[in-house]
Order: sequence, then structure tokens, then C-alpha cells
Amino acid sequence: MYDYVIAIDGGGTSCRAALADRNGRVLGRAMRGAANIFSRADAIAQSILAASNAALAEAGLGAEALSEIPAFFGLAGINVGMRQETLAAQLPFPETRFVHDGIIALQGALGDTDGVIAILGTGSAYVAREKAKLRSIGGWGFMIGDQASGAVLGRTLLAETLLANDGIHPQTELSRTVMERFGGNPENTVEFTVTAKPADYGAYAPMILEFAERGDPLAGKILDAAVRDVTDALDAVVFPGCTKLCLLGGLAPHYGKRLLPRHRSLLHEAEGDALAGAVQLAVRAFIPQTHGAGQE
Amino acid sequence: MYDYVIAIDGGGTSCRAALADRNGRVLGRAMRGAANIFSRADAIAQSILAASNAALAEAGLGAEALSEIPAFFGLAGINVGMRQETLAAQLPFPETRFVHDGIIALQGALGDTDGVIAILGTGSAYVAREKAKLRSIGGWGFMIGDQASGAVLGRTLLAETLLANDGIHPQTELSRTVMERFGGNPENTVEFTVTAKPADYGAYAPMILEFAERGDPLAGKILDAAVRDVTDALDAVVFPGCTKLCLLGGLAPHYGKRLLPRHRSLLHEAEGDALAGAVQLAVRAFIPQTHGAGQE
Repeated sequence: MYDYVIAIDGGGTSCRAALADRNGRVLGRAMRGAANIFSRADAIAQSILAASNAALAEAGLGAEALSEIPAFFGLAGINVGMRQETLAAQLPFPETRFVHDGIIALQGALGDTDGVIAILGTGSAYVAREKAKLRSIGGWGFMIGDQASGAVLGRTLLAETLLANDGIHPQTELSRTVMERFGGNPENTVEFTVTAKPADYGAYAPMILEFAERGDPLAGKILDAAVRDVTDALDAVVFPGCTKLCLLGGLAPHYGKRLLPRHRSLLHEAEGDALAGAVQLAVRAFIPQTHGAGQE
Repeated sequence: MYDYVIAIDGGGTSCRAALADRNGRVLGRAMRGAANIFSRADAIAQSILAASNAALAEAGLGAEALSEIPAFFGLAGINVGMRQETLAAQLPFPETRFVHDGIIALQGALGDTDGVIAILGTGSAYVAREKAKLRSIGGWGFMIGDQASGAVLGRTLLAETLLANDGIHPQTELSRTVMERFGGNPENTVEFTVTAKPADYGAYAPMILEFAERGDPLAGKILDAAVRDVTDALDAVVFPGCTKLCLLGGLAPHYGKRLLPRHRSLLHEAEGDALAGAVQLAVRAFIPQTHGAGQE
């Protein structure tokens, strides 16, 4: 029987770890670099180890204890391929369990109740739980998915800026402002794309929100299309009888107020964050339950 | 005074070279690997050298002659940054001149007359010449430009396939067929994007054309949106009094028949290809003209 569990929330931009006791009480917490499974496996393993060791240190435990503590992972991109075995082999934990980060986010937001979460940050994804059955949609990444995410909003803004600069679409204050940021030279925007990662595109999303408030027509067009994308996805994932919808991620408040009444009326605050969800699931996975949900 | 000129048409997927005499008569021609300026400079230089040497060999000249022959380059992506100096330094030519590939394509298609070309292949770009004045729009690449290109069509198809597979958009025969190509597993499409280049996405464009003919609603939706993108760009670049519009690239015939009458009525066949245009411009650049356009 284990005395502790490690819970990992590994997103595209950071990796958070929590050490908890058998009752799910968090004793240490830490954050380190990215743990996106699209990153190289050894870099991910390093981030996970660093965050785990720091969480142990906060609880007064040494790194050697890791070999006695099972770890539960919620990782962005984990549903892609079988890289989790490669990753597990590089880590000291005696037992590991992997789910995609949407699952721990749902557990954190809804606890054990039914409902839907929409993750609207640098990427986008949706998870529903209906009578304990999980269903995930979206989350397919920046290149061919992640509609309405910060990265896709930012990329669309750059594309529209070039169209406006070429005289194909109308110029607005927003398109002119973005072009100025690139020194007025469209070639600089193309240079940007040679190395830009999703988060780099996502850094342009706040400009869209800001200019939309001021009535900029380009900002309004991009945001309206994104709200339609979120609405389409919610229509696909919100089940009959669903009473709880939590929007998570940096864009959540901006979309929340723009949703149609049928979705806005379901909105609830999240109970906890994804790391809290990972702790709950870690306890359930690795600590034998006497009765009830994780209580001794 | 030079006896010969080298003309280079360096696109994203191949590099073509022609050796011509002072009158623009082509003596040798060859094709080698890609010369896209986004590729590494030494790889580009290698492709250019290999194609040039092969063109010389066809004309019975040895590679040592290259140091006596000036070279005129039309390169995809040349308008991005100042990498052309780096490239010129790695090549044996005594003199070099660089333009972006749209310029040689326009010269090849229109000769010295006014008009507009639309390049609709793996990428997309537009060039107009009005009273000898050139104007280029588009051509900003796959990530934030190249609307209606094969690469963008293919990427849109994969995105729509995932939306259909998630139940967010309706399934069609096309979306089901694409999903089957990926073994029915959306994760495989995401794996594809980890390494896919524009040409890899472009390989899916023919399916859209094929299914559009059969009335598939998804194919029709993607193609209609692309035709609107082409139309918007043409409206921005076709000048009053323009009488000639040449569509170039693999998608040209497919868009040509779908254009609005105001653009379709301007369509002409191209006089020659981009390499022929590069030869014309090479002669004009490097051989002193007695009178007229390139004639002695």
C-alpha cells in the first residue's frame, strides 16, 4: 500500500506536480517547464522529474522517495500515439497511469458530478461526463484543430492582417496596428511563422479581445467566428439534461459572456483546477478505497 | 560581354535551370531538387548547382564554364529576408540577380504585355503588370497565407474531417473517406501534422476536386470558399482596363471554370512557363540590348 501519490498536470507551457497523502491532502506543489507530449520525451521526463522533486522537497521528502510513489499523469497530447510507454520508462515511479489533460481538468472542475467542460486557452478541447461516461472532442492541435483557441485566433489575425495589407480585405485599426508591430513589413510576419509555436501565435489573441471591445470590425469578425466554433462544439457535446458547463482556460471569461442563452444558462464556476483533479484521480487509481469516493 | 546566361526557376518542390545563348535560345535544360529559400542555404545552392551543371552538360559545356555565366534567379520565398546574399556567396556565377518566382512566371505567361497572373499550386500568389509596373500580392506561405492553394485546401479538409468525426460538423462521404485513409483514428491525422510539409497537405487537394464533382457537400463547401478567396484576390489585383488573366499551377483549370464572369472573360492561356520567363529576363539583365526587347 502506498503512502503517497504524485499528480502531474502537464500542459503545453508548463508542468505542475502535486504530492498528496493517501487521503488526497496535498503536501507539496511545484511547477516547471513544459510537458507537452509533442516535446521530446527526455525533455518531458526532465520537466516531470524536476516538478516532482520540487513537490517532494516542499513536503520534506528526498528525491529517493520517488521510486516508492505512484504517479498519475494528465498530459496534453497524450492521446497521440503510444509515447507514454517511452516516457514511463524514463521515470522512477513504481507505477504510472496516463490520461489526457482534459480528463483531469474535468475532474477538477466538476468533481464526481455530470457536466461538460470547455478548455479555451492556447489550445481548445471539450470533455463531457454523462452518467460516469466520458466523451472528449476537439483538442487535435494547432495545425488542423483547436478552433477558437488563442493560437488559432492569433494565427487568423496575422492572416487577416496580410490580406488587409494586400488590399484583399479592408484595413481596420487592428490590422494596421498588427502590421506596425511587424515594422510595416509583411515579410517579417512570414519570418515570424518560420519558428513560431502555438503560444507565440496565442500572444496575439489579447489584441483581438481588446479591439473587439472598441468595435473594430476585423476583431469582431474573428471573435464572432470563434464564438460560432465554440457554439458548434458545445452543441455537439452538451447532452440532454446537462446542467453544468464550466469554461476553463484564459479565454473562458471572454467566450462565456458571448455564448448563446442555451449554453450561458448552464455556466458554473469550476470547483478546482486540473491539478486538483489529478490528485483526486491519483488517489482513486492507486489507493484502495474502503467505501465512498476516496474517503477512509 | 557574356556569351551565355543561366536562368533558374526555383520552386518549393523542384529547381529548374536553363542555359541560353545571348539571343535567349535555350541550349540546355535540367531539373533537380527543391530550391525554396526557406530550405537551408547549402541545400538550395546544391540544387541550383546540380541543375545548372546538368543544363550545361546538355549543351556540351563543362562545369568550369559556370564561373563565366551570369545567373538570373526566380525563387519561391525570395522576398523573405536577405538570404539571397548568403546564397550568391555559395555559387560560382560571376553575377547574379534575384526576383521572386511570381515575376518570372508573369514574364513567361504574358511576355511583355500587361495583365495579371494567379499562381494556384501548392502555394498561391498574384502578380499584376500595368504599364510596366509590377504589383505582387499573396504568396505569404502556408501558415498565414496561400489562401486557396493546394496546401491550404488539404489542411482545411483534414480539419473538417476531424470536426465531422467529432460530430461537430456533418459527416459526408468525403470526410469518411479521409478518416478511413488514416485508419479511422483521428490521432493518426494529428501524427501526420507533426512532420507534414505544405506539399503533403496539398496531396489531399485532388480528393476535394474529385468529390466536388460528385456533389459531396463538404467538398463543395471547401471549394466554394476557396473560389471566393481567389475572387477576392483577383478583385484586388485586376486593374481597370486589364484584358489578360492567366491562371497558372496545378489548380488553375479547376478554379478557371468556377470564376465569376468578370474574371472568366479575361482568361488567356500562358505564352510560356516560368523558366521561359526567367530566360527572357536573364537576357535582358545581362546582355546589352541594341534595340527592342532582347533582339539583336
